[in-house]
Amino acid sequence: MQVKEMIIEEDMRSLKLREDARNTNELRQIKVTKDFNIYAEGSVLMEFGNTKVICTASVSEKVPPFLKNQGKGWLTAEYSMLPRATGERNTREAAKGKLSGRTMEIQRLIGRALRAAIDLDKLGERTITIDCDVIQADGGTRTTSISGGFIALALAMKKLLKEGIIKENPIISNVAAISVGIVNNTPMLDLKYSEDSIAEVDMNIIMNGKGEFVEVQGTGEEATYTRAQLNQLIDLAEEGIKDIIEIQNKIIGE
Amino acid sequence: MQVKEMIIEEDMRSLKLREDARNTNELRQIKVTKDFNIYAEGSVLMEFGNTKVICTASVSEKVPPFLKNQGKGWLTAEYSMLPRATGERNTREAAKGKLSGRTMEIQRLIGRALRAAIDLDKLGERTITIDCDVIQADGGTRTTSISGGFIALALAMKKLLKEGIIKENPIISNVAAISVGIVNNTPMLDLKYSEDSIAEVDMNIIMNGKGEFVEVQGTGEEATYTRAQLNQLIDLAEEGIKDIIEIQNKIIGE
Amino acid sequence: MQVKEMIIEEDMRSLKLREDARNTNELRQIKVTKDFNIYAEGSVLMEFGNTKVICTASVSEKVPPFLKNQGKGWLTAEYSMLPRATGERNTREAAKGKLSGRTMEIQRLIGRALRAAIDLDKLGERTITIDCDVIQADGGTRTTSISGGFIALALAMKKLLKEGIIKENPIISNVAAISVGIVNNTPMLDLKYSEDSIAEVDMNIIMNGKGEFVEVQGTGEEATYTRAQLNQLIDLAEEGIKDIIEIQNKIIGE
Amino acid sequence: MQVKEMIIEEDMRSLKLREDARNTNELRQIKVTKDFNIYAEGSVLMEFGNTKVICTASVSEKVPPFLKNQGKGWLTAEYSMLPRATGERNTREAAKGKLSGRTMEIQRLIGRALRAAIDLDKLGERTITIDCDVIQADGGTRTTSISGGFIALALAMKKLLKEGIIKENPIISNVAAISVGIVNNTPMLDLKYSEDSIAEVDMNIIMNGKGEFVEVQGTGEEATYTRAQLNQLIDLAEEGIKDIIEIQNKIIGE
Amino acid sequence: MQVKEMIIEEDMRSLKLREDARNTNELRQIKVTKDFNIYAEGSVLMEFGNTKVICTASVSEKVPPFLKNQGKGWLTAEYSMLPRATGERNTREAAKGKLSGRTMEIQRLIGRALRAAIDLDKLGERTITIDCDVIQADGGTRTTSISGGFIALALAMKKLLKEGIIKENPIISNVAAISVGIVNNTPMLDLKYSEDSIAEVDMNIIMNGKGEFVEVQGTGEEATYTRAQLNQLIDLAEEGIKDIIEIQNKIIGE
Amino acid sequence: MQVKEMIIEEDMRSLKLREDARNTNELRQIKVTKDFNIYAEGSVLMEFGNTKVICTASVSEKVPPFLKNQGKGWLTAEYSMLPRATGERNTREAAKGKLSGRTMEIQRLIGRALRAAIDLDKLGERTITIDCDVIQADGGTRTTSISGGFIALALAMKKLLKEGIIKENPIISNVAAISVGIVNNTPMLDLKYSEDSIAEVDMNIIMNGKGEFVEVQGTGEEATYTRAQLNQLIDLAEEGIKDIIEIQNKIIGE
Repeated sequence: MQVKEMIIEEDMRSLKLREDARNTNELRQIKVTKDFNIYAEGSVLMEFGNTKVICTASVSEKVPPFLKNQGKGWLTAEYSMLPRATGERNTREAAKGKLSGRTMEIQRLIGRALRAAIDLDKLGERTITIDCDVIQADGGTRTTSISGGFIALALAMKKLLKEGIIKENPIISNVAAISVGIVNNTPMLDLKYSEDSIAEVDMNIIMNGKGEFVEVQGTGEEATYTRAQLNQLIDLAEEGIKDIIEIQNKIIGE
Repeated sequence: MQVKEMIIEEDMRSLKLREDARNTNELRQIKVTKDFNIYAEGSVLMEFGNTKVICTASVSEKVPPFLKNQGKGWLTAEYSMLPRATGERNTREAAKGKLSGRTMEIQRLIGRALRAAIDLDKLGERTITIDCDVIQADGGTRTTSISGGFIALALAMKKLLKEGIIKENPIISNVAAISVGIVNNTPMLDLKYSEDSIAEVDMNIIMNGKGEFVEVQGTGEEATYTRAQLNQLIDLAEEGIKDIIEIQNKIIGE
Repeated sequence: MQVKEMIIEEDMRSLKLREDARNTNELRQIKVTKDFNIYAEGSVLMEFGNTKVICTASVSEKVPPFLKNQGKGWLTAEYSMLPRATGERNTREAAKGKLSGRTMEIQRLIGRALRAAIDLDKLGERTITIDCDVIQADGGTRTTSISGGFIALALAMKKLLKEGIIKENPIISNVAAISVGIVNNTPMLDLKYSEDSIAEVDMNIIMNGKGEFVEVQGTGEEATYTRAQLNQLIDLAEEGIKDIIEIQNKIIGE
Repeated sequence: MQVKEMIIEEDMRSLKLREDARNTNELRQIKVTKDFNIYAEGSVLMEFGNTKVICTASVSEKVPPFLKNQGKGWLTAEYSMLPRATGERNTREAAKGKLSGRTMEIQRLIGRALRAAIDLDKLGERTITIDCDVIQADGGTRTTSISGGFIALALAMKKLLKEGIIKENPIISNVAAISVGIVNNTPMLDLKYSEDSIAEVDMNIIMNGKGEFVEVQGTGEEATYTRAQLNQLIDLAEEGIKDIIEIQNKIIGE
Repeated sequence: MQVKEMIIEEDMRSLKLREDARNTNELRQIKVTKDFNIYAEGSVLMEFGNTKVICTASVSEKVPPFLKNQGKGWLTAEYSMLPRATGERNTREAAKGKLSGRTMEIQRLIGRALRAAIDLDKLGERTITIDCDVIQADGGTRTTSISGGFIALALAMKKLLKEGIIKENPIISNVAAISVGIVNNTPMLDLKYSEDSIAEVDMNIIMNGKGEFVEVQGTGEEATYTRAQLNQLIDLAEEGIKDIIEIQNKIIGE
Repeated sequence: MQVKEMIIEEDMRSLKLREDARNTNELRQIKVTKDFNIYAEGSVLMEFGNTKVICTASVSEKVPPFLKNQGKGWLTAEYSMLPRATGERNTREAAKGKLSGRTMEIQRLIGRALRAAIDLDKLGERTITIDCDVIQADGGTRTTSISGGFIALALAMKKLLKEGIIKENPIISNVAAISVGIVNNTPMLDLKYSEDSIAEVDMNIIMNGKGEFVEVQGTGEEATYTRAQLNQLIDLAEEGIKDIIEIQNKIIGE
């Protein structure tokens, strides 16, 4: 009989909705290589599918001028892509002599997000710099940077605690991030580049370990979106972030 | 009798919830001075209380390289603050030799938002530059820039239509923006600087004339926020934006 | 009889000598909006016809390194044009990453001129920054900046006196400026852009309240000029500056 | 008898009015080394006392974009000081990554001045760059640059004529410059650094071979000056420039 | 008896001559991860001990202006270190807005060296960019970049050949590099950072597959060196480079 | 008879081997103008044929931050070319806003080389800046800078000794440099530009007064070179440097 085959074919098509056959609510494969860098206080190579970001946390015993003598620390982030992280080679920002608006926007976002993870008073007068260097980019580099940056941060805090440099762990809660978007009218989790580049709506959601929002950024450059769609996207993100936080905790706890 | 007085006092306190005695869902006074600049294709001086932004729309018969020979136009935005727009004088970015991350982030946001207002195919091979120059800043400069920038854009399109340079109005829909936030645990509309600087959550909402979202950006730097709070803030913004759009249409229609 | 008609025609010609029917020794309409900015210690919106400049005086309790611990103050000026201050939009200097030679030259001139208005010893160890932001440019932006900058300066000094921050007014004398030039062989006062752009000789004269020169700059790019012409131009300027100083004093005295 | 000695002493004092015993209307020793550079189309080492400037004229067969296809040429100038041209070593502008306002102002002045010497239509579509490199600075570097730059320019034009590249000499008239100033209430010609640094008024006068003004720039930073003083200074400059032009012509004619 | 023990101890000391117990003529462990980047035409992760460099070869179908329409290609190189590649975090050059002299010197060296490996005529009008990004630095980053950069280059040429983009392999010969130096008066091969930082003489030798020199750079910052020492160092380098070339060929041949 | 003619022809050929008829082991004419600059602590105009470099040594009573309070001095060098030092005019690096890689590489080389000439401990906490400004370039500008820079340095040290600022001469040994290269398969000493631009191998050798190497840099961009050739080139350089050191000592000793 034909009917069953038709159904199967239909399923196949729905499986093929995404180039890599993922479900719309499915994350790419996440791989975390702990202590990727022998010098940094904390470090990981964080991979979401083909997106690979080296995240290091560097601790310095100084604070920026606006925080001097307040007994309080600071956390800042920098983001960069290797020139051949993408299909076409990009000119280095160092060669151009300035950071692009995109880079500035992303590194400000990472910094804000990870400051929500830490009690700067407990950190004391020191600065943590989270460097996120994208060595391969296949979509979601900013959310991978945040999720990986948190692990590097947490590992650095463990090291400082162990060495007695700080007495109490200043980590308040996990912080993790994921992209969601509407592609061909379908809300989807964790867009890869080929999806992201045709998405009608692109949203980055950053949450903490208590299920609260740290930041929500949703843009519909070519299109706009309704409140119902906004809610669907947030639902998807909440699910994905829960899984990422589980992975973060497994790695940090090891 | 005491009761009435008590009620009145209660009212007074709630009025005093905001420094300027506004209700939590009340916009500041909006003032629009049309054709503020005699040279620009479209221009307004846009005021939300003490926040004053000169918005001009300049049309040039060129497109950026990535759009050449596609019969399609472009819209970009630039944002700047006069050095004494604020209580303390700031160093000019031209003197520092580079744009700050904040400026880059804001002008990218304004550009994205206003591109949602216009059909770039109908515009033809020309570029519209929206310049938003803040001459006085009391909170909400980016949302004032977007709401005023839309009027400048719409006025420029009317001029081009009238002069026969374009045949069809490329405006798709209004675009307007407002800030909302949580201050002392209370969700509020249209924060002024003294409120913004102590807000736990700060959100900028950009919507079009159909009540759809163009962009949602919500940050909780010192705090995080729940999904319920997110919904309350969006409710407030939807109300405010409706009023702004009404004002936009009155000015443009004149 | 022919004679009368000839005279009338002559009058007509002389009336038409300038696009806006001004006499050769006539200033454009001057408009001063006092306290245009609510934050600055002193401010005006200064208009000469269509040329509009926001002048603010900002006082900071610091001096540049070369003046430290000398009990003496400093005055400096910055000048900028909004991108659409002119018929064609100009690229922002902040976007180009450097100030043009023209901007540097003008802001050095404004600073030098206004330092002649003030006793820096009486000012004490503080720095006054005069910001001149041209929001519309129709010729004479540098002289408008100086004449308006002086008012902003004087208002700031009045404020400091009133607040007891300084004990004695450091203002020595008014400083005002005007452009003169030779257009179609005719010496003229206060050139607007359409005149300035075809002038054979272009001169900026800066004087104080005692009728002395602070600075004289006269250039004949396409032509040269004789000593007799130099004298005629200075005569015109002396007259015009007298009127500007009267207006300055009226505004400051209010 | 006492009287004669007194007179002699008086003379001595007046001779000592200037550190180097010059009369107030006396130029420093001028030395011109023709063809100082073997590559440039025209070049001199121009010396006014201890002020030494290498002036080269370079001709290129291109014009800036704004002059393309108009059959007309351009002349531009650049000015720089070697780091140890002065008593204290200065940081290189190339190392600082930008030109100072002073450099910009001076090179714009040199360019404007020398454009008055040449018929750009007769030059044809080529650009002359006058490079003025100060290898030792003892006051008057900008006027030395102009007076020497004119010789380099004239030599280059002779070379182009001789080689048949141009058919007619585009030089209209000599252009020469000198500084004058008021030092200790005494108007003086050709200030050296020790005089310039204490001058109440400092003026640069640029004239052509017909005794007309090309540019007059007079500044009284610490003081102001009367119209009578302005006239005295111009008298002094006229005299000095006549002598410089004579020297220019002797060198060029050789 | 004591004698034997003494001898053994002596041996021990000589073994301990290098922190990591290597012989003076012994290379660190070399590890090559082929095709480390999925986008680049050729790529490796090249490791010499703890020094790790990502080398990618990117091919573009353009040449720099000075080579246009000559049927000839170009090869250029860029070098950068991640901020935490070293024990202390370094400021990013992109953030500083300019490349350091060290970076410029190194990337010019890598480019020159690898141009010796390739026949630019056979390459045709295309440009190869070799990006060397140091993710961990323990001495010898420039020589690791050259040796790894050659592999990336060779792999890219194989790919172009296979795809029929070029008809003939433009590789002329291997190019490999190693550092040698004099540490505590002892000539040594392949210095790690702790050795390099105390070396009296530091030399980088680049050779091709025929045992010829491509570049020799030997510096004695704190000390000088004799011709005999120069010869000893070159002997060491020749040996080491032979081994590196063997490894290169094994990887490329796979 | 044939023999004599053959000999003559042979001579002719050997004379014609170099454009300027020099022997392959012959230096160009060296001219040193001592105390070329009246302000610098030490200065020369150093000429190798048509290559002319002004070398000045400036002493300041400061050290860079990394040397503070160590009782030790520093020596640094800067290098620049006047725009018309060469056949074609070059754009100024100050105008481009950054130093080229070539300039950086050269000035780092000059600094390293001359630091080998001086005992920085004996210098005390002061910095010597060697400025090398090329006013005419005909090959060998970096080696001319080093050889001339050493004289300027030695003269400055003599001055400091004489003025009692330092007690002991910190000069350890002369430092001099020369270029050698292989042109048309012939090893040659002191290449001029026309030779350098066609050289197969280009080497710069820097030595001290004891015949030891300070730095060896040999590049074969288009070709490679054998160890035998390396030795021939070093032989040539050793000879030339001996002569330069003799001249240095004669000038310094005067």
